[in-house]
Amino acid sequence: MDKGRKKIVEDMKRRRRDFHRHPESGWTEFRTTAIIADAMMSLGFDVRFGGEFIKGEDVMGRDIDAGAEKKRAAEQGANPDTIAMAGEYTGLCAELDTGRPGPVTALRFDIDCVDTTEADGAEHFPAKEGFVSVNPGKMHACGHDGHAAIGVALAELLKNETGLCGKIRLLFQPAEEGVRGGYAMMKAGLVDNADYFIALHLGLGRPTGEVYGGVDGFLCTSKIDAEYKGVGAHAGGEPQKGKNALLAAATAALNLHAIAPNSEGATRINVGVLNAGEGRNVIAPKALMKLEIRGANDALAEYMLDNTVRVMEGAAAMYGVSLKITKQGESIRTDSTPEMASMITEIAKTIPGVRETVKTRQMTGSDDACWLMRRVQENGGQASYIGVGATATAGHHNDHFDFDEEAMEIALEVLYRTVKKLNGGG
Amino acid sequence: MDKGRKKIVEDMKRRRRDFHRHPESGWTEFRTTAIIADAMMSLGFDVRFGGEFIKGEDVMGRDIDAGAEKKRAAEQGANPDTIAMAGEYTGLCAELDTGRPGPVTALRFDIDCVDTTEADGAEHFPAKEGFVSVNPGKMHACGHDGHAAIGVALAELLKNETGLCGKIRLLFQPAEEGVRGGYAMMKAGLVDNADYFIALHLGLGRPTGEVYGGVDGFLCTSKIDAEYKGVGAHAGGEPQKGKNALLAAATAALNLHAIAPNSEGATRINVGVLNAGEGRNVIAPKALMKLEIRGANDALAEYMLDNTVRVMEGAAAMYGVSLKITKQGESIRTDSTPEMASMITEIAKTIPGVRETVKTRQMTGSDDACWLMRRVQENGGQASYIGVGATATAGHHNDHFDFDEEAMEIALEVLYRTVKKLNGGG
Amino acid sequence: MDKGRKKIVEDMKRRRRDFHRHPESGWTEFRTTAIIADAMMSLGFDVRFGGEFIKGEDVMGRDIDAGAEKKRAAEQGANPDTIAMAGEYTGLCAELDTGRPGPVTALRFDIDCVDTTEADGAEHFPAKEGFVSVNPGKMHACGHDGHAAIGVALAELLKNETGLCGKIRLLFQPAEEGVRGGYAMMKAGLVDNADYFIALHLGLGRPTGEVYGGVDGFLCTSKIDAEYKGVGAHAGGEPQKGKNALLAAATAALNLHAIAPNSEGATRINVGVLNAGEGRNVIAPKALMKLEIRGANDALAEYMLDNTVRVMEGAAAMYGVSLKITKQGESIRTDSTPEMASMITEIAKTIPGVRETVKTRQMTGSDDACWLMRRVQENGGQASYIGVGATATAGHHNDHFDFDEEAMEIALEVLYRTVKKLNGGG
Amino acid sequence: MDKGRKKIVEDMKRRRRDFHRHPESGWTEFRTTAIIADAMMSLGFDVRFGGEFIKGEDVMGRDIDAGAEKKRAAEQGANPDTIAMAGEYTGLCAELDTGRPGPVTALRFDIDCVDTTEADGAEHFPAKEGFVSVNPGKMHACGHDGHAAIGVALAELLKNETGLCGKIRLLFQPAEEGVRGGYAMMKAGLVDNADYFIALHLGLGRPTGEVYGGVDGFLCTSKIDAEYKGVGAHAGGEPQKGKNALLAAATAALNLHAIAPNSEGATRINVGVLNAGEGRNVIAPKALMKLEIRGANDALAEYMLDNTVRVMEGAAAMYGVSLKITKQGESIRTDSTPEMASMITEIAKTIPGVRETVKTRQMTGSDDACWLMRRVQENGGQASYIGVGATATAGHHNDHFDFDEEAMEIALEVLYRTVKKLNGGG
Repeated sequence: MDKGRKKIVEDMKRRRRDFHRHPESGWTEFRTTAIIADAMMSLGFDVRFGGEFIKGEDVMGRDIDAGAEKKRAAEQGANPDTIAMAGEYTGLCAELDTGRPGPVTALRFDIDCVDTTEADGAEHFPAKEGFVSVNPGKMHACGHDGHAAIGVALAELLKNETGLCGKIRLLFQPAEEGVRGGYAMMKAGLVDNADYFIALHLGLGRPTGEVYGGVDGFLCTSKIDAEYKGVGAHAGGEPQKGKNALLAAATAALNLHAIAPNSEGATRINVGVLNAGEGRNVIAPKALMKLEIRGANDALAEYMLDNTVRVMEGAAAMYGVSLKITKQGESIRTDSTPEMASMITEIAKTIPGVRETVKTRQMTGSDDACWLMRRVQENGGQASYIGVGATATAGHHNDHFDFDEEAMEIALEVLYRTVKKLNGGG
Repeated sequence: MDKGRKKIVEDMKRRRRDFHRHPESGWTEFRTTAIIADAMMSLGFDVRFGGEFIKGEDVMGRDIDAGAEKKRAAEQGANPDTIAMAGEYTGLCAELDTGRPGPVTALRFDIDCVDTTEADGAEHFPAKEGFVSVNPGKMHACGHDGHAAIGVALAELLKNETGLCGKIRLLFQPAEEGVRGGYAMMKAGLVDNADYFIALHLGLGRPTGEVYGGVDGFLCTSKIDAEYKGVGAHAGGEPQKGKNALLAAATAALNLHAIAPNSEGATRINVGVLNAGEGRNVIAPKALMKLEIRGANDALAEYMLDNTVRVMEGAAAMYGVSLKITKQGESIRTDSTPEMASMITEIAKTIPGVRETVKTRQMTGSDDACWLMRRVQENGGQASYIGVGATATAGHHNDHFDFDEEAMEIALEVLYRTVKKLNGGG
Repeated sequence: MDKGRKKIVEDMKRRRRDFHRHPESGWTEFRTTAIIADAMMSLGFDVRFGGEFIKGEDVMGRDIDAGAEKKRAAEQGANPDTIAMAGEYTGLCAELDTGRPGPVTALRFDIDCVDTTEADGAEHFPAKEGFVSVNPGKMHACGHDGHAAIGVALAELLKNETGLCGKIRLLFQPAEEGVRGGYAMMKAGLVDNADYFIALHLGLGRPTGEVYGGVDGFLCTSKIDAEYKGVGAHAGGEPQKGKNALLAAATAALNLHAIAPNSEGATRINVGVLNAGEGRNVIAPKALMKLEIRGANDALAEYMLDNTVRVMEGAAAMYGVSLKITKQGESIRTDSTPEMASMITEIAKTIPGVRETVKTRQMTGSDDACWLMRRVQENGGQASYIGVGATATAGHHNDHFDFDEEAMEIALEVLYRTVKKLNGGG
Repeated sequence: MDKGRKKIVEDMKRRRRDFHRHPESGWTEFRTTAIIADAMMSLGFDVRFGGEFIKGEDVMGRDIDAGAEKKRAAEQGANPDTIAMAGEYTGLCAELDTGRPGPVTALRFDIDCVDTTEADGAEHFPAKEGFVSVNPGKMHACGHDGHAAIGVALAELLKNETGLCGKIRLLFQPAEEGVRGGYAMMKAGLVDNADYFIALHLGLGRPTGEVYGGVDGFLCTSKIDAEYKGVGAHAGGEPQKGKNALLAAATAALNLHAIAPNSEGATRINVGVLNAGEGRNVIAPKALMKLEIRGANDALAEYMLDNTVRVMEGAAAMYGVSLKITKQGESIRTDSTPEMASMITEIAKTIPGVRETVKTRQMTGSDDACWLMRRVQENGGQASYIGVGATATAGHHNDHFDFDEEAMEIALEVLYRTVKKLNGGG
């Protein structure tokens, strides 16, 4: 199967729309995984599935009905046999081993969607063009449909390429949203022997034509669920018999937001969701609090986590209720390796359609690709997180988000030329 | 249609089981209303429907899909024509006008169920006998199925009776649970010209064979929903742009529970439910708080309401969020008229199966029959709330609640003899 | 020294005014103690001082400069030698041993004042008559000046009496205000072998001429100080280095007031004082909270104490600050022995000036005579707390409080006749 | 009176020690003011006193007994006649009018002390040398004693100088601590026509020999007192009659610390002091809260102030208590004019003893000289805040703070040469 470049690019865009139409939340990407796997296997890549390499103990924020999701994936067109091969977990590692000595280069593509209901008015391009989400409450509102499609297209380009050396490893990561899957990918050892690592993101609020060789300034973050469990009682008749989980959670929420700022750098906390109680006239026997904390570096993240746990435990003690804290997601801060960012920036300058390049761009969000980046850097390798501008109709995660597909071609070319440079065998 | 007493009692028990099997939440009692209405019309009573006399402005705690509920009622065996006659609101007023001068005696029967999932093990009599609830999450766990059936049986007994004078008015009230419907019944004027008023409750934690001529000590109560509406914002990126409804509600909840007790008598408050926020990383733009307040008399209820509103408004002001307070239910305290309680107690002593009678029993709950009682008393009439013991398998509102059907016969006889005494025509 | 009754009564009133003019706070009553002791010793009573029988571990709420207080007492006219005999603690036990077999009867007189600045306008009788307090911020605003004077007069009357049997023990108790001294008196064993115990209070909101044989319904209470100790830090420069004791105390205060009421009976909590912090721009390193809790019986008091401690500890844990809880006072609920209350009521009826007698009066305050009452009752004895009406110009503890001195004569007579009845030797 | 430079420097150090020994809190600097005034008048400067130019409406954070302070000032050696001239307010404006056309140059010297008890061990130089504070709880722990002495010495140097033009205005400012006096100095119009403005601070954590031509990055800050006034009530007997100021303040404190951070820059809030309540068993009728807020620029300061007021008012509304907010101090952010900072830096390089110069140093504190700086800059003038390193034994405001007096000589020289440059008449 040797396609021409034009066909590869057309297929990339077509595939992106197919992914867009069938968005899958983190840890449920069975359809996306199976479709990519089929493509990779047909190209001759060595394919390993999430079910093979992901360890349950490393998984965060997964609360799904795998059987039902696999059934849906098959109904939405994925190959049932491939779905069966995937096993318990989604995600994929597809490797091209050139057989020639050379560096190991790993690239990460995230494949999950956002839990948002997509706009379906005529003003929204995917709706107008008929590839709006068919999965209620799910939407590719962050560009991961593009990332996944670029990954497949890159494989096709590389397959056509002769003269490569070393190994090129494409990682299709589940559950980037909520920074849930990156840690498990890292712990699976997928980049333990990598010399180079690349992650890429489209958009980032920048227009098509801009390329950032490296992105810095990611925030450490933890996503935490806190379940308070008390004892219900009739509020009018026997209030003294209750253990009030609602008040425990309420006082926790207030005091969490009162954690002192830190002069060493930015910190954040947000109790975004609080659901407590069962009935108006019952002392609330349970409460669930969903929160996130952030810090500009590891020490600040630890400062926030320590204080958060202390406040939540103190609140539980106050009301004699039990507390169960579970980490639903976590990411760290890693900066791009300057040399690699420079190299990519130089490469980008030579690509048609690129109008502006910047070596380093500061980000204020989080991406769990940082786990993979740090592992590679700790082992002496280099890593960069590339930003590729893509004119968008709305901000990331907005229900009207749609990006300029032309940017995918630029992104594909940046990756292709970078891999050739690294594994050129020249 | 002139049935013998034995048949009337058998029908009463059969009808109670039919109601039990088809429980309907407050304001959705279209099936129960229609079945009772058909019975009443066939007996020749003058029937008026809730849709005719209930005014929307007096309705509390109603959030239903009336069309869907009527459809369900018809599917569950109610006469579609009668359902159509009911109009927008459930409930019924059925009057027997003797045509002879005499007092107006009104009796209240509440007909709604509790929002509880009924036990369905063999240990639960309704399950074993095949009349367990078919409506998920709904259960006659407070005996209103019995009340409704007693009301119909009483009509049958009275129809057979000659020599009555005045008017006997049977009120089948919707939405007693949550004290939502009584106020609207009172405002509809249904007891404005009544000389006597009777409400009756089975059970009350007492065994079959006990009768209380009057019940006192009901608590004033208000059921309140508070909706805080703020502004969402990305908690990491632009926290300052949010208006945090979750924190407003949390601080309100804490301070509401800190309202000072009152040396004049018992007061209670409970924030039983708090649901706030949309996403972990979004400043919560909204919060809903469900609470109830109680007081041992009008002044104490007012004390609690004033403080509650002040605290909730202060919390909203703190966070710059809006607040919408809606009353979802309300009841007051009214005590039974002593003379009437005495009379009923004396009558009860003469009834087979009655082992113990007490003139007055103190209650600690609430019943919105109090609205009707007070109106009658204010107009110079007499009112009593009769308690009829009924051995039960579990407490009221428990999913294993079931009561001894023999108690229904006692209750029926108490009412029958009392009405005869009041409207006997001498 | 054998005075006539008229002289005894005159001396009693004179002595009351002297005590009134020199009020002494709990645990500082060195002047009052010495003056009473001198009187008792001159009468031949066996006198033991607080310094002999009070154990430091039983003392609550004492934070004084004993040396300075003794100096003041001497300057205000007390005998320095007697002050020296008093030792570390104030209070006195004066016993009349008749040498004849018979019951042991103990009477408690409290001698401390209130921490209030006395009114000094002409409308205030003590000011007008020149016996207004000379000790700033101190005032006999609860009638203990009268109690102390009655105790001395009683001793004089009894000394004149022949034909008594058994032992009569007069207990002059320090620090009744704040319920601080009664426990130590009880633990000192002063009533361990008593057959009868009597406490008496003037006033209680009732006019001169009324006598209550027994008072019931005292509330259990604990007076608690909570010291939070954290770490200061510059609030602008290094907020993260602080441990905020002010916020710990603030959140404790709120949640303490939110402790659920109890359907078993009345409970109360009040955080009356909160002093926290050192400077505006320093994270507050310390906080002191003064609170009291009450409950209508032992179980309710325990319920409140358990919850209070839990909330305070939880708040400390939240902010990583230490917490030191000290009990500054405590009392319990004990009811008067009915037989004894009856007997006293009958005696009162025979006394000139008594217009109305009641066997039992419900109180809503606390008095740590309850510790002594309960000990006597537990050992099989009888105890009663007598209320003697005394027309007053203002409520107890008010800066304009003054009572009708005629009531002292009634009180004296009630005690005298009661002791004669009990120890009459007849 | 024409002293040699050596004598001027000796007098400067001697005078600094005299000021150090007699520290005076903000708004009480009557002794310092009078001594400086006498010196200035003897030099022939035109002297105006705070009492003449400060308007009461512009004064913040002043709660003093002026009569008592003036008495103390006289007892501690100030000229009573000069004190009398000072009037109600401390502070001084001393102007040298050369009579020749030229620029107006204003210099600000702050003269108040810190409310700290000075260390008095032998390890503390002022104690060892006998110039430790004689005013309990007051200490020159921030170097303002040095600033004041430098100002006088500068006047002496300038008096000797011929060939100056324009006007040189020395402002001796009261109450810089707590940023209370600068605003009133500015509003007095003292720099309205100034072409140049200079403030100077010794120390700043840097060693002797370093000079910073300009300091930037001051924080906007407001110092706020909030008084909550409620209604007391007996907590056990009639809790419902109270309006709880303690709980209002406690809930305000918590929610103030929960004000969201701002992505535009650093913000801070600290409730540093909270004093509430009167007695353990009384619903607290009053509470006083001392807080400060900071923001990195005007908009951030306004953000914090708006939210602070809203939270405090909401808390008052919750408990039905009144709230009185008073600003006790305020400062803004002004950066040094770059040209002027450059010029001073160049001058500093030429001064003996200066080892290192930097044009701009970032600060994180606040100084209300910023009011004066901004006014001058707004009118088209230039302003700089000079930092002169001074090796210190402890941090500013520490009870062991003492600085290297050699630095005063450097500071004097920097000012002298700068003024000569600006008003050289050349």
